Amino acid sequence: MFESAELPHAIDDATYKKQVTRLRADLLDAQYELLEKPGLALVVLVNGVDAAGKGEAINVLNEWLDPRHVKSHAFGVSTFEEVQRPRMWRYWMSLPPKGEIGILFGNWYEGPIWRRVHNVTGEAELGKDIERIRRFERMLVDENAPLLKLWFHLSKKQQKKRLASLEKNKLTAWRVTKLDWEKHAQYNRYRKVSERVLRDTSTGEAPWNVIDGSDPNYCSITVGNAVLGALCRHLEAARQVERAAKRTPKKEIAEAASAKAKAVMAPLVQTVDTARLLRDLPFKERLSKAKYATKIQLVQGELAHRVRSPKMKDHAVVVVFEGVDAAGKGGAIRRITSALDTRIYSVIPIAAPTDEEKAHPYLWRFWRHLPPRGRFVIYDRSWYGRVLVERVEGLAEEAAWMRAYTEINEFEEELVDHGIIVVKLWLAITKDEQLKRFKERETTAFKQYKITPEDWRNRKRWDDYVDAASEMIDRTSTESAPWTIIEANDKHLARVRAIETITSRLDKLL
Amino acid sequence: MFESAELPHAIDDATYKKQVTRLRADLLDAQYELLEKPGLALVVLVNGVDAAGKGEAINVLNEWLDPRHVKSHAFGVSTFEEVQRPRMWRYWMSLPPKGEIGILFGNWYEGPIWRRVHNVTGEAELGKDIERIRRFERMLVDENAPLLKLWFHLSKKQQKKRLASLEKNKLTAWRVTKLDWEKHAQYNRYRKVSERVLRDTSTGEAPWNVIDGSDPNYCSITVGNAVLGALCRHLEAARQVERAAKRTPKKEIAEAASAKAKAVMAPLVQTVDTARLLRDLPFKERLSKAKYATKIQLVQGELAHRVRSPKMKDHAVVVVFEGVDAAGKGGAIRRITSALDTRIYSVIPIAAPTDEEKAHPYLWRFWRHLPPRGRFVIYDRSWYGRVLVERVEGLAEEAAWMRAYTEINEFEEELVDHGIIVVKLWLAITKDEQLKRFKERETTAFKQYKITPEDWRNRKRWDDYVDAASEMIDRTSTESAPWTIIEANDKHLARVRAIETITSRLDKLL
Repeated sequence: MFESAELPHAIDDATYKKQVTRLRADLLDAQYELLEKPGLALVVLVNGVDAAGKGEAINVLNEWLDPRHVKSHAFGVSTFEEVQRPRMWRYWMSLPPKGEIGILFGNWYEGPIWRRVHNVTGEAELGKDIERIRRFERMLVDENAPLLKLWFHLSKKQQKKRLASLEKNKLTAWRVTKLDWEKHAQYNRYRKVSERVLRDTSTGEAPWNVIDGSDPNYCSITVGNAVLGALCRHLEAARQVERAAKRTPKKEIAEAASAKAKAVMAPLVQTVDTARLLRDLPFKERLSKAKYATKIQLVQGELAHRVRSPKMKDHAVVVVFEGVDAAGKGGAIRRITSALDTRIYSVIPIAAPTDEEKAHPYLWRFWRHLPPRGRFVIYDRSWYGRVLVERVEGLAEEAAWMRAYTEINEFEEELVDHGIIVVKLWLAITKDEQLKRFKERETTAFKQYKITPEDWRNRKRWDDYVDAASEMIDRTSTESAPWTIIEANDKHLARVRAIETITSRLDKLL
Repeated sequence: MFESAELPHAIDDATYKKQVTRLRADLLDAQYELLEKPGLALVVLVNGVDAAGKGEAINVLNEWLDPRHVKSHAFGVSTFEEVQRPRMWRYWMSLPPKGEIGILFGNWYEGPIWRRVHNVTGEAELGKDIERIRRFERMLVDENAPLLKLWFHLSKKQQKKRLASLEKNKLTAWRVTKLDWEKHAQYNRYRKVSERVLRDTSTGEAPWNVIDGSDPNYCSITVGNAVLGALCRHLEAARQVERAAKRTPKKEIAEAASAKAKAVMAPLVQTVDTARLLRDLPFKERLSKAKYATKIQLVQGELAHRVRSPKMKDHAVVVVFEGVDAAGKGGAIRRITSALDTRIYSVIPIAAPTDEEKAHPYLWRFWRHLPPRGRFVIYDRSWYGRVLVERVEGLAEEAAWMRAYTEINEFEEELVDHGIIVVKLWLAITKDEQLKRFKERETTAFKQYKITPEDWRNRKRWDDYVDAASEMIDRTSTESAPWTIIEANDKHLARVRAIETITSRLDKLL
């Protein structure tokens, strides 16, 4: 990977000056087009060996681009708040919003390489890290936040020369630290690991650019050109999509939309019998009010005990509530929270996203609420909205909700790997029961707010929702984060079962 | 304060049921009006003795209100990420956005009371804590986030009875912990301290409501009525403002606006000679390019050394850059960052606020970027926008920017108290120098983006900006966070001076 970067590259000062003027103007033009183009961001990764000009490259980009729309983030050892969350959390939180350029320095490549170099991980684990990175980057590309990956290279000899010359000069000696020399001593090992990582993560949609860091002029120009090239490529792709949309006759669009609407509800592959399962739930059990009054306190007490376990400090809990309108999510959530110390839980109701949320990849708004260790977060509706309401109502592109199954599974896998206990509850009610509850809501003054014309509209598509839910449960019930279907025609029973499910997951995993 | 709460209060079940139906409907109506009223939020504080029904009150509110627009936060011992930031940070980050109701449980009253009860602080320090709270709450009220403060009370005897009866019942025993009894033993001391705190923080705009927690029915109804009352009061005030605006004839509005525009630039009080100072800066010193090339590296090295000091881990640095357009802020910032490890700094360019930022009190968007210990944040323009551009351009109400001086001083005082080193730099250039730079920007392709019609418009109000800046420097240059005026007609000198200023502040304070 590094051979061509080790060939001598240099640009003399005169050529440099001439090229820079043009390059800066072009970069700014492209940056402003990015700002105006709706929904496109650029992620620039800056990695590579020390003293190869990474810091200088960031400075050059901040000088050449309009810095108000460039966000640079550098990651070192994780801070306290970062170690509390899954590994990828800090990178998610640093993704640039649409219209902006994010420069990420010491990003998600740093950890896997470091761990392998220091033998914290073996080849197999590195392979797993690489696999994760590929999927994460794939998601970014899909979410219109394509990547430009820059690797700054110096040969071992060049690095030594560079460090020595900086150190010799009284004015620049402060730039070299003991750590730089320690890392230099490990150059060969670092190179070997990096080479594998770069090879395996140079994908079609996000290839690496290896940049020779030996000549500062060459390095700056190359970085500038790489950013310009990436911007132009992505802008051109966006323009093509726009043009194609304009060219297509209206009739064709209408036909495609209608065909799509039909196709949307056809399952991706013929799945097992979850659909029938959801439709044919027995709904027989009942819990009398009197028995409930005792039982609920009992199960609350059991949950409270589990949560107070000292083991909880190494874990966190994420509970997801899904179900059709009026399935009883709110009531069940309140019975859970009244068993918990108010200081350890948050309830996150998922409604329309804010503009900051819309400007980021889909899962960003769920990542931002993840609990630190020892805490409990309950999502009242969740990331599953994409494969439920957004799918059924056509709010998400077909491609977007289709890939969401995988993205969601990977997201939850990351939570579980971090020690987060994920409990997913589907509250199932019958169509008749929903009608009864809707009518009750309409006639009770303080329940009227819970029923809107939208609820009646959704109800008309009952079967589509059941199909979407069935496919969702099939595709996202994993061993580490399984779905639990709770029969909820009887509210009392549903509340008890919801709490029992959480308790038994805690029992199993703590 | 607690006498009337200790009189017997009780509501029987039949009365309760009758009242609740009406109350819930009214609460929802008021909540929806809040949602539609632009720019109004409600902060509900829940405090008081243990076992007096605080947790139940939160549950009741979440049941009676539409929970999608209620955000509850409970604060316990500070988490790692919280202790890294000034004390008020976690409360700022939990303020409800406009349109929503925020329920804060164990809020900014918890710490001061706890510290006094345990003799961590004396009476004088408690007085200071109270003073801070009063100012903070005043700000919230001014920023259209009025407070409803609920204190749940039980007499010592009642508390003992409540705890014992919960403990006796097998179903509820889990609700009582050892800590509850420990706190019960300290009841008298806690009551004495609380009484003082409540008395001194029961202000006209944010009084305390003491609620008798002995009867659950009474308690729920009282909480509901208190929230309803607060909502109605604030909504009515907002409606009155709207009506008054409608009644005023257009001519009168125009006259008032013109009178206001004139008044805006009249200094609040006759201040000292900062205005003349800013106008009569000598601008004599120069630094040749050759000398600069050496000097800048020297001062960068000195800064780098200071920042690497182990003492930095207990501190953080906030640097604020202000100055007219083209004063050279960006260039100076890049010279600072190139002396810093990329992993420890962030540059925050302050542009138009996002909708989440607009939905919170003014300073919220600056609080959210505060560095944890050991880190460096550089604000490229800052909270001073309110008393500069927003004042001059009439973007903020007169009352808003007038109180901003005090709010800013208090904000910076909190940073300093937390060990954050605050460096505020005003880059001063002459009107001629600005013209020269504007013209240069217009003729250099890659600098054109830096010059917009707005810059030329701002330039026409040069004197107003200088006046506003002078008054700002006068009113916000405090001993712990002083302003440094840097003559910046010579860019080289300005960059060196900016770095030297930071270094010397670090020298003084580390």
